[in-house]
Amino acid sequence: MAGKDLPVSPLAVPLPEVPAIAGVSLGVIEAGIRYKGRADLTMMVFAPGTTVAGVFTKSRCPGAPVDWCRAALKAGRARALVVNAGNANVFTGKAGRDAVAATAAAAAELVGCKPREVFLASTGVIGETLPHEKLTAALPALHAALTPERWPEAARGIMTTDTFPKAAVRTARIGDTTVTIAGIAKGSGMIAPDMATMLSFVATDAKIPAPALQALLAKGCAKSFNCITVDSDTSTSDSLVLFATGQAKHPRVPAEGGAMLKDFARALDALLLDLALQVARDGEGAQKLIEINVTGATTARSAHKVAMSIANSPLVKTAIAGEDANWGRIVMAVGKSGEPADRDLISIAVGGTWMAKDGGVVPGYDEAPVVAHMKGREVEITVDLGLGRGKARVWTCDLTHGYIDINGSYRS
Amino acid sequence: MAGKDLPVSPLAVPLPEVPAIAGVSLGVIEAGIRYKGRADLTMMVFAPGTTVAGVFTKSRCPGAPVDWCRAALKAGRARALVVNAGNANVFTGKAGRDAVAATAAAAAELVGCKPREVFLASTGVIGETLPHEKLTAALPALHAALTPERWPEAARGIMTTDTFPKAAVRTARIGDTTVTIAGIAKGSGMIAPDMATMLSFVATDAKIPAPALQALLAKGCAKSFNCITVDSDTSTSDSLVLFATGQAKHPRVPAEGGAMLKDFARALDALLLDLALQVARDGEGAQKLIEINVTGATTARSAHKVAMSIANSPLVKTAIAGEDANWGRIVMAVGKSGEPADRDLISIAVGGTWMAKDGGVVPGYDEAPVVAHMKGREVEITVDLGLGRGKARVWTCDLTHGYIDINGSYRS
Repeated sequence: MAGKDLPVSPLAVPLPEVPAIAGVSLGVIEAGIRYKGRADLTMMVFAPGTTVAGVFTKSRCPGAPVDWCRAALKAGRARALVVNAGNANVFTGKAGRDAVAATAAAAAELVGCKPREVFLASTGVIGETLPHEKLTAALPALHAALTPERWPEAARGIMTTDTFPKAAVRTARIGDTTVTIAGIAKGSGMIAPDMATMLSFVATDAKIPAPALQALLAKGCAKSFNCITVDSDTSTSDSLVLFATGQAKHPRVPAEGGAMLKDFARALDALLLDLALQVARDGEGAQKLIEINVTGATTARSAHKVAMSIANSPLVKTAIAGEDANWGRIVMAVGKSGEPADRDLISIAVGGTWMAKDGGVVPGYDEAPVVAHMKGREVEITVDLGLGRGKARVWTCDLTHGYIDINGSYRS
Repeated sequence: MAGKDLPVSPLAVPLPEVPAIAGVSLGVIEAGIRYKGRADLTMMVFAPGTTVAGVFTKSRCPGAPVDWCRAALKAGRARALVVNAGNANVFTGKAGRDAVAATAAAAAELVGCKPREVFLASTGVIGETLPHEKLTAALPALHAALTPERWPEAARGIMTTDTFPKAAVRTARIGDTTVTIAGIAKGSGMIAPDMATMLSFVATDAKIPAPALQALLAKGCAKSFNCITVDSDTSTSDSLVLFATGQAKHPRVPAEGGAMLKDFARALDALLLDLALQVARDGEGAQKLIEINVTGATTARSAHKVAMSIANSPLVKTAIAGEDANWGRIVMAVGKSGEPADRDLISIAVGGTWMAKDGGVVPGYDEAPVVAHMKGREVEITVDLGLGRGKARVWTCDLTHGYIDINGSYRS
C-alpha cells in the first residue's frame, strides 16, 4: 500500500498534462485519516448547473458512500466531490451512514449547495470506522485552496496501493465547439469491476443533460473498466462518476443525446479505456500487461465470459509471469468457463503466432517467436472458439510474488 | 512438480496402512513418460463381476481419457484401470483419442477383457501428445507384477505436483458382513472440482449394483471433492472412480441400494471427505488449511456459492497467509458472489470468536484470541448471513509465494 515504498510498476505510463476544465476547481489536503505525510483527502467543486452520471459496484455489500451516491444521482445534479483514501467506510453500519451524512453536510455548507449535490467516495481498508471528524475538520482549509490546476495532486491524493498516479485527457467536438474531458482513476488490487472500477472521476466542460450523460457513461464503462481484472475480486467501493459543468458554448444537446454526441462518445470511450488500462498496468505485483482476445464464440456475452475466465485464472497468470506460453492452461480456462466450446475446434495464438489450431498443436510449430513475445512487457493472447461470430477483448496482468508481498500484509 | 524437490506441505498427513481389498491387485512401473527415476504408470486389475461408478469434470474441454471413461461407464462393469502421470492427454485431438484406444486395447488383452472394461486416466501437462507406445510397452511387465498390497506405491505413482501421497481406508457393515473401502487421490493445483477432483480411485470388496454405486458416489462427491478449492481452476481431467469387486459375502443389495447401504454410505462419505481434505492440505504452496462455514443463507446452494466465493478470493487467501483476520475482504467476497446478502445483517467469526456482528465490528472486540488462531495451521471462518437456514461448508488453503514458485515455471 502507499507508504510501503512499493516499486513503481514497470508497466507505468507518465502522468499526462491535464488542462483546467472550465467549471471545475480542485485540491487535496493531508487529513491524517490513515496515511502519514501524504495528502489523503481530495475535493472537487463544480459550477452551478453541472450534470452528473455514475456507475457503481454490483457488490451486494457496497460501502456507505456508494449508497449515498446512488441516491444522490437520481437528481442528476452535482456541485462537489469529496474523496478520502485509506479507509473505505465499508461494513461500518450506522457509523458509516453517519460519516457520509456529516461529510456531505459539511461540504455542502462550504460550497453553498444541498448535501445531495455532494458526491462521496472512500477507498482503503474495509470494516474500520471512518474518523469523519478528521475529514470535516480538514474541509474548510481544503475548500479555501481549490484551483482549476490541481489535477496531478488529485490523481495522487486518491491512491492506495497504486504505484503511479493515473489520469487521461481527450478533446471532442460538439457542433463546432471543442470540449475537453479529463479524468483520474485509482486501483491496483481488488479489481474485477462489475459496472465500474475502484474509483474514477471524470469531468468535462460540455453541457450534457444527465440522462444522455448516463447513457454514454454506461456504454463506455462496459467497454473499458468492465473489461479489466487484476485478481477477480470485485470491490465494495467501485465508483465511476462523470461530471459535465456545461461551461462550453456549444449548441444545446437534447436529453436523449443522439448524433450530436457521436464525437464526444468516441472521446469519452477512449479516455475511459485509457484509465482502465492504467489500472490494469498497475495491478498489484504486475510485471506484464495481458490482452486477451476471444473470437468465434456463440455470442459477444459468451466471448466476454470466456475471456474473463482466462484473465482470472491463477494458472494462466502465473504461467505468463514465468514467460511460459502454456496453452494447456488456456484450454483449461476456456473449459471451466462453462460457455459453449468444442475442444476440437479451438485455436490459440500468442503474439500473433498460432500455436494450436483445431484442437491440437500446430504441426511443425516453431516456439521461437512465441518465446520472444513472452519475454516482453505486453502479452497478447487470441483464442478462436470456431463456433460463431461473438468476440470480446479484456485485459489483465500477470500474477507474481509481488501480489503475495502486497496482500499478505496489507493492514500491517 | 514432482522431481522438483518441493518441500512437503506442512499440512501433510501420514499415509495410512491400506489393507488388501479382495478382488483388487495393483502395481506401478517406471514408463519414462515425462519424469525420470520414478514410477509414473499405475495399473489396477479387478475381479470379474466388478461394478463401477464415476463422476468427472464438468469442463467443456475434457481430456480424451475422461471421454473414454464416460462412455465405458455406461455398461457399469470394470476389469482394469490404467493411470499415467506427467502428461494429461488433453487438447491432443485425434492423437489423444488414438492413445486412449491403444492403451485400453493393450490392457484388455493382458487382462482378458473387453477394452470398454478398462478405465483410463492421465494427469500432467496439457496439450502435448501422449507417447502411448511407452505405456503399452511397459504394460506387460507392470501387469505381471501386480499384487494386492501395493496401494502405497499406487498413491505415489499418480502424483504430479503433490508433495505427499494420499490414501484413506474405512470399513462398513452390510448386513452382518464387514466390507472395506480403500482409496487414493492426487491433486495439488488446478483444483476447483466441478463434480469430481483431479484424480481419485476407490475400491471396495462390497458387491453393489452399478446404479446404486453411482448414486452413492455422486452424493458423497457433492459433500467432499466439490467442497474444496485450491485456486478456482477446474481441471480438464477430474475423475473420481469407484470400483466394487463383489468379493465380500454379504446379502444381495438391490439395484436401487436403499437402507441396506446406509452404513456403507456413511463410510464412503467419510473416506471421500478424508481424501478431499488431503488434496486441500496439499494445495500448491499451502501453509494453512482453511475451513469456511456459511450459515443463514437463503438456501444451501446459495450458502455454497458464498462459501466458494470466499474460498476462491485471492485477497482472502493472501490475508490468511499473512495471518491477518481481515474481515473486510471476507465482506468483499460475500458481496461479489452475487448471492442474496444484506450488509447490515452479516456476522463474521474467526476461530469461534465473533469479530463482526450485524454489519459492523463487535463493540469492544478483543483481537487477541483471533490473532492466536490465525497463527495456527488450521483456520476456521464462519459467516452468518442472517437471512435464512441455508448452510454450507467448504475448504481451501492459503495463497503464498509457494504457489507462484510452483506455477511460474511448471513446464521448465
